[in-house]
Amino acid sequence: MDHDTAARTTLIRTASEAGSRVFATILTRSPISRIDIARQTGLSQAAVTKAVSPLVAAGLVDAPPATQRDGNPGRPAAPVSIVPDAMVMLGVKVNVDEVIGVATDLATNVLVSESRPLAAHDPGAATDAIAAVVSALEEALGDKTDAIAGIGVSVSGDVDTSSGVVRESAIMGWSDEPFGADLQERLGRPVTLENDVHALTVGEHWFGVGLGTESFAIVTIGRGIGSGLHLNGQVVTGAYGVSGEIGHLPLADPSRICPCGRRGCVEAVASTPAIEASLSAALGRDVGIDEAVQLAHAGDAAADAAFREAAALVGTAIATLVNLTGPELVIIGGEGVADFDLYDATLRDAFAAHAFGAAARCRIVVRPHTFQDWARGAAAAAIQSLVR
Amino acid sequence: MDHDTAARTTLIRTASEAGSRVFATILTRSPISRIDIARQTGLSQAAVTKAVSPLVAAGLVDAPPATQRDGNPGRPAAPVSIVPDAMVMLGVKVNVDEVIGVATDLATNVLVSESRPLAAHDPGAATDAIAAVVSALEEALGDKTDAIAGIGVSVSGDVDTSSGVVRESAIMGWSDEPFGADLQERLGRPVTLENDVHALTVGEHWFGVGLGTESFAIVTIGRGIGSGLHLNGQVVTGAYGVSGEIGHLPLADPSRICPCGRRGCVEAVASTPAIEASLSAALGRDVGIDEAVQLAHAGDAAADAAFREAAALVGTAIATLVNLTGPELVIIGGEGVADFDLYDATLRDAFAAHAFGAAARCRIVVRPHTFQDWARGAAAAAIQSLVR
Ligand SMILES: [Zn+2]
Ligand SMILES: [Zn+2]
Repeated sequence: MDHDTAARTTLIRTASEAGSRVFATILTRSPISRIDIARQTGLSQAAVTKAVSPLVAAGLVDAPPATQRDGNPGRPAAPVSIVPDAMVMLGVKVNVDEVIGVATDLATNVLVSESRPLAAHDPGAATDAIAAVVSALEEALGDKTDAIAGIGVSVSGDVDTSSGVVRESAIMGWSDEPFGADLQERLGRPVTLENDVHALTVGEHWFGVGLGTESFAIVTIGRGIGSGLHLNGQVVTGAYGVSGEIGHLPLADPSRICPCGRRGCVEAVASTPAIEASLSAALGRDVGIDEAVQLAHAGDAAADAAFREAAALVGTAIATLVNLTGPELVIIGGEGVADFDLYDATLRDAFAAHAFGAAARCRIVVRPHTFQDWARGAAAAAIQSLVR
Repeated sequence: MDHDTAARTTLIRTASEAGSRVFATILTRSPISRIDIARQTGLSQAAVTKAVSPLVAAGLVDAPPATQRDGNPGRPAAPVSIVPDAMVMLGVKVNVDEVIGVATDLATNVLVSESRPLAAHDPGAATDAIAAVVSALEEALGDKTDAIAGIGVSVSGDVDTSSGVVRESAIMGWSDEPFGADLQERLGRPVTLENDVHALTVGEHWFGVGLGTESFAIVTIGRGIGSGLHLNGQVVTGAYGVSGEIGHLPLADPSRICPCGRRGCVEAVASTPAIEASLSAALGRDVGIDEAVQLAHAGDAAADAAFREAAALVGTAIATLVNLTGPELVIIGGEGVADFDLYDATLRDAFAAHAFGAAARCRIVVRPHTFQDWARGAAAAAIQSLVR
């Protein structure tokens, strides 16, 4: 980290609460006038001006130059903007078979991306793959490597961000793994470890479709089924680091056993491996998800039934989430949305059957997140952790 | 409302965001020093002092008098306190068979209480009963009637607080009822209409066991089953006014039809009427809840089974709520907790079977709320609506 980046990082990390709110507002809503910042944050214009000034001096925020007719560069109606190039953040998503990394600017625009396959699932193998991805990103960044402020790493499961411990990740087979600390030592850079869906939610809230929405949820379908909740303007992380575990709501028949060991979880029926297992049992041979999709599109009754069962359960799970938390928007993402035509009608019917009263007005939109978007979410989580 | 009360109401309603936060902090944490207010709110001490001053002048807040050695009454380490008597608030809970009202001070200490039976369920009958309760409260208050700042009214169901409309109340049989506006006209006082469980949650957060807890839920069991959620320091009201509808999560067998018309709702199995219906069917005669409790205590197998089925479903529903939102505390209340010994072990077993990872660390406590507590919650909601 060069001198400028270190100074900028320190400035953001040590800002007052007002200073942090001003920076976050400029970061997510650039360009924005000081008047609008005051309106958004509830601070006085004087407090906003005071908070903006050191950000401008440090090169994090751009204020329009004084003109001859108007000698006051601090005039409240002139918009100020984030300087995206003031920092580089790395974001890494650990998948079950691959590590995907991006380097982004402060607005999470992707500068470069890299990936490496993951042959084994142990934390050592994942650390090696992440280190290789980070090296490749640094090489591709060239001179900009000096501006790297940190690394966000996201992984599926129950993650304690404050201690950097993966408490339970069924998909990786990890428990109580001090992955964040180990990575930080290996990489020599600050590491923010985050649950993958929380990270995606942060990304959508600060830099995506969730901007300006006080309450929304992201539900991801695919190999795992998860969700990220954003309510009253904040991400819900859970008092003990667990929240949004929509894949482990006990909505299915208790005879269905989940890989997590519990009975009747949504994932036991609606995850990609569950659909594969159900169709394989029905057809008496091993069927992968690609063939399952083909069969369903070709009108095969067993494949159709497997997807319908999954879709009905996901729709019921979304109604459950909506009846409890009442968001205005649910974004469905995850690799499963590539075949969302197989889910759409059944999912919406099940949602409508169980959504309670006005909660049914919640919009459900499908948004195909690329693997890069997940890595961007990890970078967004690292940027946010700097500001908090 | 006398001149002082009107002036105080206006001062609170028109306060800046900082002023509101300072008042709310003094209201809920009295006595508290200005230094601690600054710490709690993230405001500067200067901003706190500026906000406290008009509250003291209006008689809402008590600051220690200047002493001879220390001539500065605004010194930051001296504690300031709310003046509970500065205002009176009425709180009314509409039950299916009764209207219960209290008059409280600003700290929701109950000054007097009154109730009236509700012979019919139509909004007109409820309005008449509320008007009778309010008259009786006013008479009991005597001179203090002048200090009444408003009335909070809470009712079960989907309530739009901003417009004062009860959109759907299965228990009362109301839909799209402009109850708040009608009441306000009838009573000639500001009315805050709120969902009953939300109101109870506000009461617990501002004046009860939820104080200082960033995330908790209240789950009420009895004739209806509901919940109130408080996450990241704020009540979750739902973008469309619906949230916490734990009684209408589709966790039961779809063959069970809920009074709301949906299939498989928790209330279709675990509400008091559902337990009565289940046991009546098993025994071939009408069994009321009191007899059901006696039978279960006497070891009757059918009664035991009915309560176990209800308890397991409520425990599963709490696990669902906890897996999604991760609170640190769940408070179980409602009239059903009078017989909580019949639920306790089975409920906790079901919770443990379905709680995911560290979310299982959420504490579950039972708190018998009296009917007066519900009315106090309505008063708390009215006080909070004044501050926001
Ligand atoms: Zn599971
Ligand atoms: Zn229902």
